[in-house]
Amino acid sequence: MKYLAIDVGGTSTRVAVVDVDGTCLGYGAAGSGNPTSSGLENAAASIVGATRAAVAEAGTTMDDVAAGTVGIAGAGGETGVALLAELASGGLSVPLTLEADLLAAFCAGTLSTQGYAIVSGTGACAVRIRELRIDDTGDGLGWLLGDGGSGFWLGHRAVRAVATALDDGAPLTRLVDPVLAELGITPDPAMGTHGRSVALDHLVHAVYRLRPVELARLAPLVFEAADAGDVEAVAIVRGAANALTSTLASVLDPDIAGPLVLCGSILARQPSVADPVTAAFHSVMGSDAPVVPVTDGLPGAAVLALRRAGLTVDDAVFDRVHDTVASRR
Amino acid sequence: MKYLAIDVGGTSTRVAVVDVDGTCLGYGAAGSGNPTSSGLENAAASIVGATRAAVAEAGTTMDDVAAGTVGIAGAGGETGVALLAELASGGLSVPLTLEADLLAAFCAGTLSTQGYAIVSGTGACAVRIRELRIDDTGDGLGWLLGDGGSGFWLGHRAVRAVATALDDGAPLTRLVDPVLAELGITPDPAMGTHGRSVALDHLVHAVYRLRPVELARLAPLVFEAADAGDVEAVAIVRGAANALTSTLASVLDPDIAGPLVLCGSILARQPSVADPVTAAFHSVMGSDAPVVPVTDGLPGAAVLALRRAGLTVDDAVFDRVHDTVASRR
Repeated sequence: MKYLAIDVGGTSTRVAVVDVDGTCLGYGAAGSGNPTSSGLENAAASIVGATRAAVAEAGTTMDDVAAGTVGIAGAGGETGVALLAELASGGLSVPLTLEADLLAAFCAGTLSTQGYAIVSGTGACAVRIRELRIDDTGDGLGWLLGDGGSGFWLGHRAVRAVATALDDGAPLTRLVDPVLAELGITPDPAMGTHGRSVALDHLVHAVYRLRPVELARLAPLVFEAADAGDVEAVAIVRGAANALTSTLASVLDPDIAGPLVLCGSILARQPSVADPVTAAFHSVMGSDAPVVPVTDGLPGAAVLALRRAGLTVDDAVFDRVHDTVASRR
Repeated sequence: MKYLAIDVGGTSTRVAVVDVDGTCLGYGAAGSGNPTSSGLENAAASIVGATRAAVAEAGTTMDDVAAGTVGIAGAGGETGVALLAELASGGLSVPLTLEADLLAAFCAGTLSTQGYAIVSGTGACAVRIRELRIDDTGDGLGWLLGDGGSGFWLGHRAVRAVATALDDGAPLTRLVDPVLAELGITPDPAMGTHGRSVALDHLVHAVYRLRPVELARLAPLVFEAADAGDVEAVAIVRGAANALTSTLASVLDPDIAGPLVLCGSILARQPSVADPVTAAFHSVMGSDAPVVPVTDGLPGAAVLALRRAGLTVDDAVFDRVHDTVASRR
C-alpha cells in the first residue's frame, strides 16, 4: 500500500506518494489548497490535481493508496469538514486526516512524539506537542489580534516607522527608501496639502490598497536595514525576537524538554531572530535541548501519514523520507 | 443672501442655512455624505437632500443662497473634485468650498484665525492652523498606519489584551467580560482543540468578521474598566493620552500660542484623556492658553461659510450661530 502526504500552503499545494519504507514514489504540485484564502472549490481542485499528478508519477492508482495526511493551517472546524467532503466528491475517496501544519512541520524535524514547534512566516504561532497531538497553542491569533514577531508584524512596524518619520520630518530611518521603493512610491520631498509631504500621502494611499497581511513582504527590508545598522530596524527585529520568545514561553512545560522545531521564513532565514529565541529556549530547558530548523513541512506530512496508519517510522525511514521527498521541490 | 453650512460625517449629514448675521434659518439632516465610506452617488444624494430640506425650512430658494462651506474629512484630492461635480449635477449649483472637518471644528470653538485642533473619535489627528488654513498635520494616518489614541486604537488594544489574557490563561483583566459581551460571545471556560479556550476561538472569529475600524465601539468599555481600577485598562487609557500628546506636540509652533480645540467623542467625553493632553499643551504654551472642547462642527462650518464670503464674524455673530445652529440637532 501507498500513503499520501499533502502539504497545503497559502501559495502552493504539494503532494508526495510514499511507500511504507518512506520512499517517495511520486510528486505533484498545484496552486493554493487553502479553502480560507482560495475558496473551497479552488482549494479542493488544487489538492485533487496535485494528488492525481503524484499518483500518476508513482505509476500506481488511487486503489493502491491506503490513506493520507493533509498538513494545513487551521486544520480543525467546519472548514476542514467541508474540505474533506469536497475532496471526496472530487474523487479523493481514500481516508484523509487533516493535521495542523505546525504538527507536520514538527514531524519533519524530529522523530520525537513530544516537544515544541514555533513558526514565524506571514503569521506567528507556537505549539506544545504531546503524543503527536497539539497540547497547547500560543498566539496564532492573526494579524489584527496577535501574530507577534511575524512577517506581517515586522512589515507593519516598518511601514509605521516610515510613516512616522515622514510625518514628523524627523531624522529618517534607512527603512524609508526601500519601503517606498517596494510600494512603488517615488520619494518626493515636496509638501502637499495641509503641511503633509507628498510621499506620505502616496504611502497612505498605497498601504490602504493592500490587504493588511501583504505588509509581510516588507519584512526582509527590516533585516537588511538592521544589518546596515539602522537603529529603528534593529529595534523592530529585537521586538520580533522578544514577541516570539514570549509566545514560545507561554507553551513551555518543564515535563517536556524538547526538541524545538523552528519554522517559517523568518525563523529559518534570520539568525537575528532565531538565535535569541533559541537562546531563551536553552536557558529554560538546558543547552542540550535540541533545536531543529525546518524549511519544508511535506516530509513531516509523510511521516505523520505513516505513523497515523500504525506503521513504525525509525531513523532509516525518517532519513529515506527526507532524502526522497525533500529533493522534489 | 443666505449661506450654507454643511457638516459631513461618517453616519450623518447636517445642513444649516444661515443669514449674514449668523441666524440659522433652516436645518436639514440625512445619512452619511462621505463619498469614501458611502460611495459618491449616495454621498451626493444625502448632501443634496439635507440641503433642500434646510432651504425649504428657511422659506427661501437656492437662488437666494450665495455660497456654502462643506466640512468633511479628507477634504482635498480627486474625491473632493468628484463630489463637487456630483453635487452640481444634483442641483447644488451654488459655489461650495470643501474644508477639512478639523478646520470647521476649530472655527466652532474660537474666532481666532490661528491655533490648533486635535480630534480623537474613530480616528485621531492634530492640525496647526494659520490664517484659517491648515498649516501642519500630525497623524490622521488611519487605523493601520497611525490614529494613535483614537477609538480604534483603544478598542484594538482592549481586544488584544482580552485575547492575550484568554490565550495565556493569565489573570483576566476586567475587560474580558464586557468585551466578550459587546461582541456577542458567551464566556465559555471550556477548552477547545489544541489547548485553546472556546471563548478565544469565538473571539477570533468575531473580530475577523468586523471591519477593523468597528473595534472603536469597544473604546467606552476601556474607560469603564479603567474607572473600576483595572490595571490593563488604565495602561491603555494612559497610552492613548500619551499618543495624542505626541501627535499634538508634532504640530506645535512657539509662534502660535493657541487656542487648542478638542474634538471627537474621546476628547469630548473622557477627562482621563483630555486632561493630560490639556496639561501637556499648557506646559508648553503656558497655562493661559485657551483650551476649548467642541462637540459639533456645524456651527464652525457656518462661521467658515460667512468668513470665506468676506463677511465679518464678530462675537455677536459667533454667539448667534452657536445659539441658533447648536439647538438644531
